[in-house]
Amino acid sequence: MELNLIGIPGIPIVKEGNNIADIILDALDAENLEINDGDVLVVAETIVSKSEGNIIDLKSLKPSELALELSEKTGKTPEIAEAIISESNEIIKVGPDFIISETKHGFVCANAGIDESNVDEGLATPMPADPDVSARKVREKIEKMTGCKVAVIISDTQGRAFREGAIGTAIGISGMFPLWDRRGEKDLYGRELETTSVAVADELAAAASILMGQADEGIPVVLIRGVDYFKTLKTDSANVKPLIRPKKYDVFR
Amino acid sequence: MELNLIGIPGIPIVKEGNNIADIILDALDAENLEINDGDVLVVAETIVSKSEGNIIDLKSLKPSELALELSEKTGKTPEIAEAIISESNEIIKVGPDFIISETKHGFVCANAGIDESNVDEGLATPMPADPDVSARKVREKIEKMTGCKVAVIISDTQGRAFREGAIGTAIGISGMFPLWDRRGEKDLYGRELETTSVAVADELAAAASILMGQADEGIPVVLIRGVDYFKTLKTDSANVKPLIRPKKYDVFR
Repeated sequence: MELNLIGIPGIPIVKEGNNIADIILDALDAENLEINDGDVLVVAETIVSKSEGNIIDLKSLKPSELALELSEKTGKTPEIAEAIISESNEIIKVGPDFIISETKHGFVCANAGIDESNVDEGLATPMPADPDVSARKVREKIEKMTGCKVAVIISDTQGRAFREGAIGTAIGISGMFPLWDRRGEKDLYGRELETTSVAVADELAAAASILMGQADEGIPVVLIRGVDYFKTLKTDSANVKPLIRPKKYDVFR
Repeated sequence: MELNLIGIPGIPIVKEGNNIADIILDALDAENLEINDGDVLVVAETIVSKSEGNIIDLKSLKPSELALELSEKTGKTPEIAEAIISESNEIIKVGPDFIISETKHGFVCANAGIDESNVDEGLATPMPADPDVSARKVREKIEKMTGCKVAVIISDTQGRAFREGAIGTAIGISGMFPLWDRRGEKDLYGRELETTSVAVADELAAAASILMGQADEGIPVVLIRGVDYFKTLKTDSANVKPLIRPKKYDVFR
């Protein structure tokens, strides 16, 4: 039982209007790699945001009173604080160098996922406006071009509440159900399993991140083979939402 | 750039006194697989606890007042509540079906990592007493028998504060530094990287969990090849502690 992850080299610097599916297929072609049925593609959110022109010109922002206050508390620039506010539903915690919020997508993470890396000075990339839609577009184009059923995960690198270090995390999904529901399954002794819901999509994003981070040059796309994800596949309309804990069940906010 | 994960089949049901390193090497032999320099082995904590005889006989526990109170609040048995208390430094949050605590190892997780799956009725397995020591013993024996440098990660499946579903998580480490410190590295535009610390050991545990969970029979050990972990390798004495966020930096407790 094997899982193979291939970091796809040769992805060019992505510009607004580029089609991510085409870029991926071209890069695979150059490596003589083919898409197979059941492959999972993990795509770093930065290139998706850039292709969608979802870039913030920090100089264009007028920081609010709240942004100035958050800037003071965190040492972030007022413009970045303003960008974080405008990408968020709710500011949850503010620390010496971070702002934890619920993003407009519903994710609880630091700095609303806004990234100042991998873009020109003065610019920043927020998460894609709707990462599930971004994932679906990539999936549909790849399926149309190759005739294969695939899953696409848009990933971000996010911190955790109680552990140091960030890990790859799924923020957009198409083609696979993100949770593997194991309720009713039995263990080796015929007893109910303790862990009944495994966030397979997050595990795939974390696995891909090992290769993305390992590259000296950017590896924003990883192809994963051997995932028996049809077990988790519910419908073509599957998305990231089952991974978001509803606020009413969140005991830490 | 590739990462290959192999779920090792044929691991027998582990009993107290079994040597995990020997069991792994025998199972690899049976598959004609060899250990190579730089391999990472991810081992599920349940088999480690069982081999160490670290099993709780629930009937032998006398529930305290606090255990009775937690049992009432959570619907867990008073004995399991008592076991969770005795494995914890601090009870942090109690919900309708969970108790979140800081374990005696320092991990913040649900039910102190005590598992009632994969053992006989009336028994439960806590985490290993010192998972770093467990990892080191497995690593040293495997290195001695094979002459190869490896890393060993003891993994558990744990929930997250703000996301649904559990994922594989590192609870014991030997042979690799768990965080990859990227401070000072530059992005494609020559700017400082946004994410400066990546929890590679947790990403490896998450990746291995995909195969562990996918098996109809238990796959408690996964061999990972292609991790450029020497980048994260600091000393032979590396352990899991850098992944634990100190309480003073924990803004959610």
